[in-house]
Amino acid sequence: MDNRLASIDLGSNTFRLSIGRIVHHGGTAQIYAEDKLRELVALANGLDEHKRIDAATVEQALAALRRFGERLRGFPPANVRAVATNTFRVARNAAEILPAAERALGFPIEIISGQEEARLIYLGVIQDLPPSDHRRLVIDIGGGSTEFIIGQRARPLELASLELGCTTWTRQFFPQGRITEARMRQAVLAARGAIESIASRYRGTGWQEAYGSSGTAKGLLAILTENGLSPRDITLDGMERLRAALVDAGQVRLQDWAGLKAERVPVLPGGLAIMIAAFQELGIDRMRAGDGALRIGVLHDLLGRDLHQDQRDETVRQMLGRYQLDGAQAGHVRNLALRLFDQLGLAAGPETTELRRALGWTADLHEVGLAIARSDYHKHSAYILQHADMPGFSHDDQRLLAFLALGHQGRLAKVRDYAPDRARWLALCCLRLAVLVLRRREPLASIPFHIQAQGRTIHVMVDEGWLDAHPLSRFLLKSEVDVWRKAGFTLAVS
Amino acid sequence: MDNRLASIDLGSNTFRLSIGRIVHHGGTAQIYAEDKLRELVALANGLDEHKRIDAATVEQALAALRRFGERLRGFPPANVRAVATNTFRVARNAAEILPAAERALGFPIEIISGQEEARLIYLGVIQDLPPSDHRRLVIDIGGGSTEFIIGQRARPLELASLELGCTTWTRQFFPQGRITEARMRQAVLAARGAIESIASRYRGTGWQEAYGSSGTAKGLLAILTENGLSPRDITLDGMERLRAALVDAGQVRLQDWAGLKAERVPVLPGGLAIMIAAFQELGIDRMRAGDGALRIGVLHDLLGRDLHQDQRDETVRQMLGRYQLDGAQAGHVRNLALRLFDQLGLAAGPETTELRRALGWTADLHEVGLAIARSDYHKHSAYILQHADMPGFSHDDQRLLAFLALGHQGRLAKVRDYAPDRARWLALCCLRLAVLVLRRREPLASIPFHIQAQGRTIHVMVDEGWLDAHPLSRFLLKSEVDVWRKAGFTLAVS
Repeated sequence: MDNRLASIDLGSNTFRLSIGRIVHHGGTAQIYAEDKLRELVALANGLDEHKRIDAATVEQALAALRRFGERLRGFPPANVRAVATNTFRVARNAAEILPAAERALGFPIEIISGQEEARLIYLGVIQDLPPSDHRRLVIDIGGGSTEFIIGQRARPLELASLELGCTTWTRQFFPQGRITEARMRQAVLAARGAIESIASRYRGTGWQEAYGSSGTAKGLLAILTENGLSPRDITLDGMERLRAALVDAGQVRLQDWAGLKAERVPVLPGGLAIMIAAFQELGIDRMRAGDGALRIGVLHDLLGRDLHQDQRDETVRQMLGRYQLDGAQAGHVRNLALRLFDQLGLAAGPETTELRRALGWTADLHEVGLAIARSDYHKHSAYILQHADMPGFSHDDQRLLAFLALGHQGRLAKVRDYAPDRARWLALCCLRLAVLVLRRREPLASIPFHIQAQGRTIHVMVDEGWLDAHPLSRFLLKSEVDVWRKAGFTLAVS
Repeated sequence: MDNRLASIDLGSNTFRLSIGRIVHHGGTAQIYAEDKLRELVALANGLDEHKRIDAATVEQALAALRRFGERLRGFPPANVRAVATNTFRVARNAAEILPAAERALGFPIEIISGQEEARLIYLGVIQDLPPSDHRRLVIDIGGGSTEFIIGQRARPLELASLELGCTTWTRQFFPQGRITEARMRQAVLAARGAIESIASRYRGTGWQEAYGSSGTAKGLLAILTENGLSPRDITLDGMERLRAALVDAGQVRLQDWAGLKAERVPVLPGGLAIMIAAFQELGIDRMRAGDGALRIGVLHDLLGRDLHQDQRDETVRQMLGRYQLDGAQAGHVRNLALRLFDQLGLAAGPETTELRRALGWTADLHEVGLAIARSDYHKHSAYILQHADMPGFSHDDQRLLAFLALGHQGRLAKVRDYAPDRARWLALCCLRLAVLVLRRREPLASIPFHIQAQGRTIHVMVDEGWLDAHPLSRFLLKSEVDVWRKAGFTLAVS
């Protein structure tokens, strides 16, 4: 494998590209920064009143991605991960923009959930902190969302993403950049209202050190220390003095403040209001600035996948326990489904590898919907797999799992909305066949059939003696032929 | 309270009315049968290829309900419960038919889930069985669904409802009533395919006695014993002999079989196939016929509600534990929401009582969606409350809980589909206010406000000193005014 990894963070305010080089030291591996690019896109500012990103902003975003794409030419797809955050989560036209964005970049882009964003941020921030057993609170104020994490060593204990960001807050509470006492009070109260929902939990979990990892935190730290508002670190007292001074001035003027960068001017009031609110609601006394952030977390997550420490395996393992699933049955279905999938001999490549993993995870979790109800449990499984907090999984990953779970029982018309390609239909077929012959919930002594696919014909070659001994499976296989015919496939059982 | 109770079972084959009289003996209460009516409606037969019940069948159903309604005139609504089962569950036009059906009957009709049907059937069947510690398997083959229950004394251990019924099976596998060996084999195999999905679980739980509680079981028992096919009880051997004789004859002829009632002729082949399949898949050796069934279970469930042993309280208690909810917070929200609701002084009556209960249950469970994900947890709460197996709750009950859960956070546009009446909007307002002031997850020393409603104006009178000490709650209350304005209410805070 190529020893370079790249992450792209399509943030609500800034797009960032990071390239790292994997260096192995004995049994461990580290990432050395090799290059980085950033582009101020101000995506969140491009949201119109219908929550659609306007055309001019889209064009700017695509131009930035084309430049990143040029830098990434020749990178193997498995070594690149691009993640999009809050503005893509909320924009009504995100699905329309995504294909063009992926063409511009030349790599797939995942819209990740707030929880996943928080997990990756924490993973990024701890890379640059000294080892410690202290619990650490990390706050990352982005353009459209703010992530709150408490973690200990590598393990996040609390993850939350709230929809308040320096770009959106400034836009909502400080139109035309005018700062008044009343506006500032509203902005802080509104942010406190959002943060209050997690405050009790976070105070309960507790922490010894607080870090701010975003441009807002770094910018505030620079302003507070370079203008004598705080000796070191971000403090509530220092921020209150900055707030009073900004209200007096009625606006943010670049020339007034040492340490203030031009690009932070249009987002400072909102960022300050959110940070003050966080200090007040959570009872933070002082905060250091942490490097790292999302793009570094994504790089390290990629490294983990490369080293066969895929976070997603751990997530699935935990869900198996938490939802009290029948692990034995899950294992039987998983083994059989994957063996059938391997018989198909699909072209090797990262897409096939990922699809095979998704098939395995869905086999593990296909009964998760039983936690809600037995009837139509496959629909509930799909709902959970689509919506659950699943660390390491992107929205698209979860959608693929939901597709497989929804389609593993009953007719196939209901999964057409997922617009599966041929490979995904075939993976689904493997899962259905595995579930079908394992309905008795007893392990099979041997695999009773072999599977091949040509175009839209799936050949299932079954041991005739086995079928004679299992009239029910014979009957169910026959029904399967009808089901697949309606989905445009010929299932030939012989 | 009037000492008469009535239950109406709108089955897929037969509608039944049962009237019972409550007699108190010391500390216990019993139900004495007072009257019963039955009407053969063959609802499932009226389903056309689009799964819509045709007009002629609807007319027949309404006529039957009008006759029941006449008999029930003067019954207090709290003493009557009408439940509709599988055909109403699957019919695409059920929602259109329901209002006319309720007008004809003069009482509300609940479409209950298969799980709830199974629970009520078991409750009905055990009333007529001698006390015993044996585990009992009960199979109730209805017109459109078959319920399988294993229970011990009053407690069901396994509940399942499968979509196979004597009416639908006969229609699908024996068109024009023609019986051949091949058709019978297909019918049995298809039923085994459905039953296989629960077989491993049921065999694992195990039982000592098996009972059949439906017309199919009673009919089979009569035919088998009166024609010398089985000395007593239903046996697989006896059914195989009946099956062979029916195949020989090529049809069911009333005159061939002692014990066969005319009305069972059109549904016997399907019912026989399902019963054979159940014996084979579950390994039943013999089955007795049990009286009781759904309508008796409904009567006893009504009696329990009257005696303040509402099954629904127990269900909510179990869910609080199973989903590991924060019981203290749930209790605080519940208490405050109910006290606010009581301040409204809505007209007393069964509807207000039920709404108040629903408000309490939703307050208990409003955070159940956290089991899926933190973000948008109120949507997940609504999904779970709508779809979960919740013993004692009807579809409508669950829909009301889902409405309250969905609306307790964020904007109100999303709950318009539930078409809430004024009282439900007000109940929702109580829940929102309770959650709002309890966001800190700490108990309140006193209730900070008083609530009144006139038309679509809700007056919230708040202690000004309390508001001054709680600027965040003041801010959130102000946002609440906007939210309610968009829903067509004036929230006046003073």
